[in-house]
Amino acid sequence: MKIEGRNAVLELLKTDKTVDKLLLQKGAEGTLGRIFALAREKNIRVQFADERALARESETRRHQGVIAFVSEYAYAELSELFAGERGSRFLILCDGVEDVHNLGSILRVAECAGAGGVVIPKNKSAQVTGAVVRISEGAANHVKVARVPGINFAVDKLKEEGFWIFGLEADGEPLFAADLTGDIALVVGGEDGGLSALTRKKCDKVLSLPLRGKVNSLNASVALGIAAYEALRQRV
Amino acid sequence: MKIEGRNAVLELLKTDKTVDKLLLQKGAEGTLGRIFALAREKNIRVQFADERALARESETRRHQGVIAFVSEYAYAELSELFAGERGSRFLILCDGVEDVHNLGSILRVAECAGAGGVVIPKNKSAQVTGAVVRISEGAANHVKVARVPGINFAVDKLKEEGFWIFGLEADGEPLFAADLTGDIALVVGGEDGGLSALTRKKCDKVLSLPLRGKVNSLNASVALGIAAYEALRQRV
Repeated sequence: MKIEGRNAVLELLKTDKTVDKLLLQKGAEGTLGRIFALAREKNIRVQFADERALARESETRRHQGVIAFVSEYAYAELSELFAGERGSRFLILCDGVEDVHNLGSILRVAECAGAGGVVIPKNKSAQVTGAVVRISEGAANHVKVARVPGINFAVDKLKEEGFWIFGLEADGEPLFAADLTGDIALVVGGEDGGLSALTRKKCDKVLSLPLRGKVNSLNASVALGIAAYEALRQRV
Repeated sequence: MKIEGRNAVLELLKTDKTVDKLLLQKGAEGTLGRIFALAREKNIRVQFADERALARESETRRHQGVIAFVSEYAYAELSELFAGERGSRFLILCDGVEDVHNLGSILRVAECAGAGGVVIPKNKSAQVTGAVVRISEGAANHVKVARVPGINFAVDKLKEEGFWIFGLEADGEPLFAADLTGDIALVVGGEDGGLSALTRKKCDKVLSLPLRGKVNSLNASVALGIAAYEALRQRV
């Protein structure tokens, strides 16, 4: 994944993320000089390049003389998502969300609504790529994302931790009648099949939004946004 | 706009929409024969074409032997949106939504939440194109959309009709503390500038969603979804 631009790279160097390499414009001065010093301090490999080489590597065309190559997205451990005050923890689980736009939007919703993290499965799911980070408007860098072998594994662990699991899908109980306080997890289904049969069965409750029109579903991130903010409203 | 495929065209011929022309495969039989008969009955011009000509005109590659050319999207008059029971009318106004994905999602939210219509300005706004209809998952065909010279014109008319106008933007009053019953209109701003200064001033109230993260805004259609469903929750 590439991070480009002076501020973005400076911010990056302040974190613990693994930077594989820094491509820096020859004759770096000012902020670029500061970036160079910081990179040396952290033992990051710095490669000097001319304008043309930078332009060739740039994906945004706004590299401002510096491009950082970072390791793949740093996923969190599932157990890290259990941090936070007992009785007010709030997580989001994705059960087969394969569209990168949907995953990016879900991460943005999660971050805005103050969720403690998002869980995605390793297979049959979009992963956190550079495109997802961009679509999430950077929210992916602030919200913890844990990858698990399967979403049902996470559901079992969450139940052991005392979470209530709420699936979002049609033909459930009315969302607005549900108690969304306490330690809760909202489960969002995939674009095609929705929740898997097993996940649906494992949920403590399946919740549905009222639909007043002829189109029979909302987009996954919109539905999640409505449910997450209903939780937030109840928890204030 | 092109409508392709047997069922889609059959459904189309049952509506009052103006069909300019029908491109039909030579030697039409079965359902295609029925489509031909219906078209003749309605005095629609039918042009026979071979497989190659149909393939050339097809945008979906699933024409199944028939493509209908329909007039542009049939917009409603603003006054048509005032129908519905006084005291429970609910409209959505778009103030400079230029992204077709956002407009499509907004129409889908409007339809699912049971809004009586959506108002868009003629300029500096996405219009209802075939792409928007597709993104809305067909909701655009079920929800009324009115086009007005400017959104402030619509706001004035709505106020005369007794609507309360609520803008959705940062730095307003908390959404969840607002009374969203009665005749109301929610105003969504554009992707870049949000609400225009004049629109913001004309709103009876500006409402904001709580944001718990570092990313400082939600996507327009997600924010609208949350506000529209909060209105729906209060109005049940």
